[in-house]
Amino acid sequence: MKNLNKSEDEEIISKITGLGTGVVEDIAKHKNPSIQIPQRGIGNVDFNSETNLLTMGDKMSSRSFFNIAHSKKFLQTMLIASKCKDFVGRGKTASIRELYYQLKHTISGTKENTFDDQSESDPLIVDLETSLEVLREELHLKADDKGTLIGNIVLEDSGDVIDCSKLGRSGLAIPSIIEHYNFKKIKADYVLVIETGAMFDRLVEEKFHLNNNCIMISTKGQAARGCRRLVNRLHNEQNLPIIVFTDGDPWGYYIYSVLKAGSMALAHESARLGTPGAKFVGMTMSDVDSYGLENVTEKLKDVDKKRIDELLNYPWFQKKEWVAELKLMKKKGVRIEQQALASKSLEFVAEEYLPEKIAAGTLLP
Amino acid sequence: MKNLNKSEDEEIISKITGLGTGVVEDIAKHKNPSIQIPQRGIGNVDFNSETNLLTMGDKMSSRSFFNIAHSKKFLQTMLIASKCKDFVGRGKTASIRELYYQLKHTISGTKENTFDDQSESDPLIVDLETSLEVLREELHLKADDKGTLIGNIVLEDSGDVIDCSKLGRSGLAIPSIIEHYNFKKIKADYVLVIETGAMFDRLVEEKFHLNNNCIMISTKGQAARGCRRLVNRLHNEQNLPIIVFTDGDPWGYYIYSVLKAGSMALAHESARLGTPGAKFVGMTMSDVDSYGLENVTEKLKDVDKKRIDELLNYPWFQKKEWVAELKLMKKKGVRIEQQALASKSLEFVAEEYLPEKIAAGTLLP
Repeated sequence: MKNLNKSEDEEIISKITGLGTGVVEDIAKHKNPSIQIPQRGIGNVDFNSETNLLTMGDKMSSRSFFNIAHSKKFLQTMLIASKCKDFVGRGKTASIRELYYQLKHTISGTKENTFDDQSESDPLIVDLETSLEVLREELHLKADDKGTLIGNIVLEDSGDVIDCSKLGRSGLAIPSIIEHYNFKKIKADYVLVIETGAMFDRLVEEKFHLNNNCIMISTKGQAARGCRRLVNRLHNEQNLPIIVFTDGDPWGYYIYSVLKAGSMALAHESARLGTPGAKFVGMTMSDVDSYGLENVTEKLKDVDKKRIDELLNYPWFQKKEWVAELKLMKKKGVRIEQQALASKSLEFVAEEYLPEKIAAGTLLP
Repeated sequence: MKNLNKSEDEEIISKITGLGTGVVEDIAKHKNPSIQIPQRGIGNVDFNSETNLLTMGDKMSSRSFFNIAHSKKFLQTMLIASKCKDFVGRGKTASIRELYYQLKHTISGTKENTFDDQSESDPLIVDLETSLEVLREELHLKADDKGTLIGNIVLEDSGDVIDCSKLGRSGLAIPSIIEHYNFKKIKADYVLVIETGAMFDRLVEEKFHLNNNCIMISTKGQAARGCRRLVNRLHNEQNLPIIVFTDGDPWGYYIYSVLKAGSMALAHESARLGTPGAKFVGMTMSDVDSYGLENVTEKLKDVDKKRIDELLNYPWFQKKEWVAELKLMKKKGVRIEQQALASKSLEFVAEEYLPEKIAAGTLLP
């Protein structure tokens, strides 16, 4: 079953072949075979305040075969590259755990395993992604899937045409790879991205997506890659505004920032996984006062306070609205959940809170 | 939006009203108002080896208003009962967190809150379920949703007719309440229930559901209530065989046992959430030898060993096949994952392992 079109697959194969050819040429010239890999981690991640995206810096590391500290990793990287080429060539996809199991074996004539644990293969996949400048999905590797979609959108998935406004109260399960989705018809005005499954259920029950002509996506916590890529494509290809609705705590705000600016771990993929145009509707600390919700807040725990301080240090949280919000949270010493809006009435979130805030445009950047 | 039919809703309302009437009558007679609640926990859970279901025993506790240790809980139980009656009457459903937020308030003239934490309301919901002998879903309360459905089944959900064989590689997200599902047309031969999302993805990619004419359900770990109820209904109402496929470890085996016999915490709902007719296809410890998978097993950790011993003590694991399996696991000292089958080939699970075992009927009871 295909995920990407033929020419993209061929380009990926040619990139992997290029990597291998370089190594073969090194060997022919009796040189120490080596590959160049961008450094990862906060030290090589920049925030571009113009694009509002986290990006990878240009610091590189070299991995060479005749370096005792590198040789096993070098071998493992080659094995992964070769297996991915095989997946792409055969039109197959695999989970990163399947990749590990496919490659794990004892090297003949030794007692040495190619891999002893998935923690050895996972970081090398990212090495390969960054050095080839490709998405994991383009290597035909799958992350876990999570998230649900419902609303006024007709899409084609592997030959099936799915009208997501006709899925009752169930919705479409968002798979780990959505590159193959073909958007056929979209009548929605915007996309509402919702942190918790329970709030998504509430809004489905209130028919919010039908009454407000929007597409709703539930991330169920931190958004999975398939979910982030879907939001990115709906915004960039279909010009749909993205409005994010999370709990009012540092964890919810970070979920928003990952959807918007990308993440540090995947900074090399920000342009395809991040959506800088996304806006934030709530929950905000200002909501607590505006809607009289003081009684249904919860005291910040130490771990929440520590996380707020971390967020205050991230360059991508330096917008004045967010600094004010985070400082107000510390001052009040409380957090608030999406579902706390139920203290007004079950319908309040769908009939007043969201429509009022969205109509007034009181969204955070 | 309705979840249950009108007459069932009326029956629930009448049960709740009956509870309230009893309390009012006690008050009128100047008696100490009290309610009877079945005891919970292992001490009041029996395993019925004939039905193969965990059931609740008949030990009861009394909760009365003029007992200082009970009076707050008595008040809280009444508040929950009253709010559920309201939900059912209005045709609304709520998450158990929303219920908590709806009821949390400061009692006027005091500094006392009705509830300070959801951990106070959750167990009282179960009290109410057991004393009224109703399902949580019948009280219009929702648990979290989880799980995906795909295959040859057409169902009606809230007026929409959904053909689950035409959902591409995405599948239908299984909601927390599926009482309202109306099965329109089923051509499948059996239901395959799969523990991990990644294995579900693999089987979708291999078109296992189409090539083997089955319905596939992914539980993504321990099955949520909606998922368990769906499996129960497909078996009991549609006579579909249920085949469960989990990791080969005590955690996977427990996921199977909960699907089959019910759980201790929800023993009062076993008949509607458990499916005694379910069978188990793998992974088994015997598979490790049969398929030469020794090299892709993982060493048992202490926590795994402890869990195996617990399972060996549960009455519902006393079938000889399961005792043998658990003892073999201890003896080998290893566990094995579903995805370890990828060490043979990506297609192996779909083209050989599952079809061979299912055709041969080598399933565990």
